[in-house]
Amino acid sequence: MEERISMVHGSGGAATSELIGSIFAKEFASTTLDKMEDSAVVEGAGKIAMTTDSFVVTPVSYPGGDIGRLCICGTVNDLLMRGAKPKYITCGFILQEGLEVSKLQEVVHSMAECAREAGVEIVAGDTKVVNGNGELYINTAGVGFVPEDREVSAERVCVGDAVIVSGNLGDHHAAILGTRMGIVNEIESDNAPLGEIVESLFAANIDVHTMRDITRGGLATVLKELAKTSNTTIELEEEKLPVTPQVKDFCGLLGLDPLYMGNEGKLVALVPVEEAEAAVAAIRGAKYGQDACIVGFVNDKAPGKLHLRTRIGGLRNLEILQGEGLPRIC
Amino acid sequence: MEERISMVHGSGGAATSELIGSIFAKEFASTTLDKMEDSAVVEGAGKIAMTTDSFVVTPVSYPGGDIGRLCICGTVNDLLMRGAKPKYITCGFILQEGLEVSKLQEVVHSMAECAREAGVEIVAGDTKVVNGNGELYINTAGVGFVPEDREVSAERVCVGDAVIVSGNLGDHHAAILGTRMGIVNEIESDNAPLGEIVESLFAANIDVHTMRDITRGGLATVLKELAKTSNTTIELEEEKLPVTPQVKDFCGLLGLDPLYMGNEGKLVALVPVEEAEAAVAAIRGAKYGQDACIVGFVNDKAPGKLHLRTRIGGLRNLEILQGEGLPRIC
Repeated sequence: MEERISMVHGSGGAATSELIGSIFAKEFASTTLDKMEDSAVVEGAGKIAMTTDSFVVTPVSYPGGDIGRLCICGTVNDLLMRGAKPKYITCGFILQEGLEVSKLQEVVHSMAECAREAGVEIVAGDTKVVNGNGELYINTAGVGFVPEDREVSAERVCVGDAVIVSGNLGDHHAAILGTRMGIVNEIESDNAPLGEIVESLFAANIDVHTMRDITRGGLATVLKELAKTSNTTIELEEEKLPVTPQVKDFCGLLGLDPLYMGNEGKLVALVPVEEAEAAVAAIRGAKYGQDACIVGFVNDKAPGKLHLRTRIGGLRNLEILQGEGLPRIC
Repeated sequence: MEERISMVHGSGGAATSELIGSIFAKEFASTTLDKMEDSAVVEGAGKIAMTTDSFVVTPVSYPGGDIGRLCICGTVNDLLMRGAKPKYITCGFILQEGLEVSKLQEVVHSMAECAREAGVEIVAGDTKVVNGNGELYINTAGVGFVPEDREVSAERVCVGDAVIVSGNLGDHHAAILGTRMGIVNEIESDNAPLGEIVESLFAANIDVHTMRDITRGGLATVLKELAKTSNTTIELEEEKLPVTPQVKDFCGLLGLDPLYMGNEGKLVALVPVEEAEAAVAAIRGAKYGQDACIVGFVNDKAPGKLHLRTRIGGLRNLEILQGEGLPRIC
């Protein structure tokens, strides 16, 4: 195998076979994928969840993870947010010529490891090569099974719900931005699969109304969209929002607002207020959930609005992210 | 909506919402997609087929189609090749800044139209924006349902099978290459969804052993891989290979071999020889199948080999595509 990707690796012929054999096959080994058919045939279920995401993060590796871990987490988490049990992943690689094969190898290894952690199987893949400067894009799509008794959707948000976040805000965004700026600090991306958190909620019999992973656009964008869809008012309490001191300092320095920063291993769950304490306890007992807390409540004061109760007692109206945020954060 | 895509359209905030609302939502309108959840929850089945493909074809539009039609056909056809009934499609767009919004609109419209023709629903999507020069990549993943009584796989290929192609070879490849070279002729891409052909075969009770769509790498690459997997010998007859006079002329001019040229609306089916005539009749009666014919047979003379019986009676050994083929053909 050469040291760098060239256009010939996208031919569909001998060079593509070599690439698949020497890089993908050994990491993604599975009885389904090994058959190399045009599509994978797998066991199904009565209700399935489907999702897709493309990943274009730059840099490809950053403190706490890389695009390989990120693409599995992103897709698995999107399935989990509907109460699904993630099962199968497909992956499409778009490689720019000049990409170092060792970098690709590292990323593919990281995907395989994260897939094992998340309990999903990579069942189908595709590789294309385009002109460029050695960058790497990955698209993943996922299928999960939804147990018949689970009904998790934005439409179930209602007055009286508590708003719970599973941990600290802004870590992924700060890690990516810090790396790009060459800032040395202790901030690591939170990229993580959230299956244990979600299953702990259901195991504790919490009637989860809705869940979202807090990615591009941040908590404010996610909650503003939920307020609009459900025609309720979501009121956050500023002093309850969890942010690590490191990220707080980083934000202060650069004028960033953690409410609009992307995470890749955090969710927000809306549950009936009387089940909120039990829900927080369930999340805290799960991997990646130890900093979970209640950050707000749903009321009917101003339907469709997202409000922030500030530290000094004021009420600020929040909109979805305007402008650019951080390009190529995921 | 602006005339060109910029990084802000990838923010996940207001500009992304505007892009989704004004371009994707109206073309892809569906009760599932409209809910804008993290993943789509849809009806499942006992056996499902899954596949993925990224599309990076250049130019984005060419005689007979565009990347929008291509990405639906490619994914639908991969599902069909396992005997599945294609149902759901996810799509991930990677847009380079500077892309003309009118071009995106045209492509998205073409996807929607082809999805309707193929009878599939687009249930989930994602958009990313990267730096660049206005190019456009699309990843599609698909899910289909496999009826319990269908067993279509490379492992079923056996001695005594006939090899049937559903139509003329090389059209897509010639159309893309001709467009790039500025050659004016009548050649159009064959990009088409093959559902009617596949269902006609099953409706005629043909015991289809295996099917492949003849894409990158061409018929020779597909059949060589099948010969290896099934440890049989596949023997093609050169004089039976269907190629239009226009493509034949084009190949003569440029020294191309239709056996290694990509198509996007053709399949090869291996069926028991005694059912071969009925299979050809079934395919010919279906949309996009009027030029179907038998092109070879499976024997046990040289396990793992693909042979071509030439017009003058010689026997040529064929390998999979070596070298580059045509970069960015799909």
